[in-house]
Amino acid sequence: MGRELFSKETVAGCAASLNIPNLSNAAIADVLNVAVTLEARTGIPFIRMDQGIPGLPASRIGVEAEKKALDEGVANKYPPQAGLPALKSAASRFVKAFLDVDVSPQSCIPGVGSASISFAAFAITTQLDPRKDTVLFIDPGFPVQKAQLNILGIKHLSFDVYAYRGEALREKLEECLSTGRIASLIYSNPDNPAWISFTEDELHIIGELADKYGVIVLEDLAYFCMDSRSDFSQPFKAPYPPTVARYTDNYILMLSASKMFSYAGQRLGLACISDRLASRHFPALAARYADSGIFAQTYASSILYTISAGTAFSTQYAMAAMMEAACDGVYGFVSDNREYARRAELMKAAFLKNCFHIVYDEDCGRPIGDGFFFSVGYGKMTGAELMEELLHYGISSISLSTTGSEREGIRACVSKMTGDMFPLLEERLEAFAADHPQVSQA
Amino acid sequence: MGRELFSKETVAGCAASLNIPNLSNAAIADVLNVAVTLEARTGIPFIRMDQGIPGLPASRIGVEAEKKALDEGVANKYPPQAGLPALKSAASRFVKAFLDVDVSPQSCIPGVGSASISFAAFAITTQLDPRKDTVLFIDPGFPVQKAQLNILGIKHLSFDVYAYRGEALREKLEECLSTGRIASLIYSNPDNPAWISFTEDELHIIGELADKYGVIVLEDLAYFCMDSRSDFSQPFKAPYPPTVARYTDNYILMLSASKMFSYAGQRLGLACISDRLASRHFPALAARYADSGIFAQTYASSILYTISAGTAFSTQYAMAAMMEAACDGVYGFVSDNREYARRAELMKAAFLKNCFHIVYDEDCGRPIGDGFFFSVGYGKMTGAELMEELLHYGISSISLSTTGSEREGIRACVSKMTGDMFPLLEERLEAFAADHPQVSQA
Repeated sequence: MGRELFSKETVAGCAASLNIPNLSNAAIADVLNVAVTLEARTGIPFIRMDQGIPGLPASRIGVEAEKKALDEGVANKYPPQAGLPALKSAASRFVKAFLDVDVSPQSCIPGVGSASISFAAFAITTQLDPRKDTVLFIDPGFPVQKAQLNILGIKHLSFDVYAYRGEALREKLEECLSTGRIASLIYSNPDNPAWISFTEDELHIIGELADKYGVIVLEDLAYFCMDSRSDFSQPFKAPYPPTVARYTDNYILMLSASKMFSYAGQRLGLACISDRLASRHFPALAARYADSGIFAQTYASSILYTISAGTAFSTQYAMAAMMEAACDGVYGFVSDNREYARRAELMKAAFLKNCFHIVYDEDCGRPIGDGFFFSVGYGKMTGAELMEELLHYGISSISLSTTGSEREGIRACVSKMTGDMFPLLEERLEAFAADHPQVSQA
Repeated sequence: MGRELFSKETVAGCAASLNIPNLSNAAIADVLNVAVTLEARTGIPFIRMDQGIPGLPASRIGVEAEKKALDEGVANKYPPQAGLPALKSAASRFVKAFLDVDVSPQSCIPGVGSASISFAAFAITTQLDPRKDTVLFIDPGFPVQKAQLNILGIKHLSFDVYAYRGEALREKLEECLSTGRIASLIYSNPDNPAWISFTEDELHIIGELADKYGVIVLEDLAYFCMDSRSDFSQPFKAPYPPTVARYTDNYILMLSASKMFSYAGQRLGLACISDRLASRHFPALAARYADSGIFAQTYASSILYTISAGTAFSTQYAMAAMMEAACDGVYGFVSDNREYARRAELMKAAFLKNCFHIVYDEDCGRPIGDGFFFSVGYGKMTGAELMEELLHYGISSISLSTTGSEREGIRACVSKMTGDMFPLLEERLEAFAADHPQVSQA
């Protein structure tokens, strides 16, 4: 102890002034608020590893397309219910180019970021069959998605996948799905927060059991093509990222402009629904919404569009332009995003040098790649303790305990680490390690 | 009969091909689809009175501010949870300038159009007290809002206000609110679809009873300052539009860029919450969301932001610029929107000349003004019959029966009527009237 930048009183006082009742298990937004407020009050900059926010400028292609659409007068027109046709076509082409999966344009539906896509997906998937009222999270996961269920009053089940990789996943999923209560299951690949990625074998298991139990898989691809272990940069060329879409027709792929194209501010996500699911008729939907009951129509019109009347029209043009440019090979978003892997490599080295360890470290024997996030632990500290303690050293993060993980550690986001901050990070980690000597274990 | 532009078979076949199960009670989007599809198939243009879409170009001030924000690089940043500070200040100033109501910036929260504002408001107001689980609609109203409740599984009560104007409103509201089940009540002023407006006396009654029964009033101001009977065009000068905010602290005012600034495409609405309600602590919210339980914080962060992570960042700059310009008196949105009143006057004359009648025709003895909508009926036809029959004459509208009205008629939206279409409207109405002679009543 003794090398802290912020005293216990300062941090606790700041949290109290922001009405944050329980700092150690605080949500991302609350940690962010504490960091920003402490920075403003003291002038001492934080190492901000909390929020997963793009660390690269927005795609210029998107910005120019958006300005052009505004100049052409789209701002006074409600967007079409199922989305701009040019965007739907671009999304279909993009999924083919970068996943080698066929989804027709009409099954690609834009929303207000991936957030609204998952929100509407949670609603619709739990309204298909009264017995199936629960969402299964393969954790660790993105806490906001569970918060969405809380608004809707939908139940969830979850398990930490750490102990259930490879064939062990089958038994665990059987246990959950055989209850007959699971409407949909969700995970992200690569994973937020742990940066693990399911292997093709694991996705095969998920797809097989989704079919067996009639469960819809929500595959969150927010960090699409950001696993540094393979080169996914060439459109229409292997290798392709792993996806459950190869193993089942019960899927909704969730794509987002936020990290992929550094376009988080404009709120554009896409549901790419398997054509078979998209065109399927559900009597329960027709009855509830007095509509056609066709999955994609109900999803787009009776749910997504009813909640917000679409997402910004000019941004739909931007997303179409970015996706087409990526497919044409003139916008190298995959290469651009390699910058995050470079930052992760340096940051992980700094943590490891100071006696931290990577918590989720491998995919069935293969070390995880570098990318947007990684997870670290320290000795026997709990994640909540570590998160709160690091705040005193000017490092903000979130506890893995808030992500459904049963492992102790924190999530570190690399995106805001620019070159000049690495010496600061090293210095603070050294101070932390010096203040917290690890007792060697017998 | 005999003068139709589209045969029964053509219209019915079109509806069937669009999976519309029940055309006569079709939702706005379905009627719109039928009209657009028939136009495309036959080349015959429709008189489109269906969707309430801006008929004026988007505010140039908004477009320029949005492009500037994009150039300055906002697209890669998540918007702040409670909204852009400059927008919050502008909204506060705007409410003062055009309503003479004081709401502080922190109580003004942007969302993805008024749609998301009402969606989140329905959620939060029914989560404050387990006994209060129902929303009351003072109808006729906007059908999409009831569709939103359907997604959330929230109950509603409603009544057609036609027979309960003036003091009669008190007794009817007492009857509804004294059940103890009403969490919030909603109406629009001026009203979509009927263009009636509550008087100050009626709003006084609503405010008084909201306080008596602890009910939150959701005042939808989508057609703000569009009642042609008064000149609301001068900022910070009387007269001001009537508002319940003068009579209770239990309110959320819903403002929207869509019609007011002809900015529907970019999806920007605002909740302006009374400061007293905004800062009130609700234990049920704190328990459900594990947050502060302070109304405006839970509304903004745990609900609205959780659903979509904000609304397009550049559009928040646009809205701030438009509101400030309106307050400065350099953007005359009220005068611009007078164009709708001119169109309404001409259209109403054409309908009346052909034996139609205005259904909702007065506010407590005072004839309603001209504006974005009006309601018309024809002889003893039901609204559903009239809507469907007019489709055959190339005129699309929605039946009042879909808006919670107990009167027979249709809603006519004036916004798409440009000068060249008036002769067409007259011609078609004449054909309709000739085909449907009214039996004079004894």
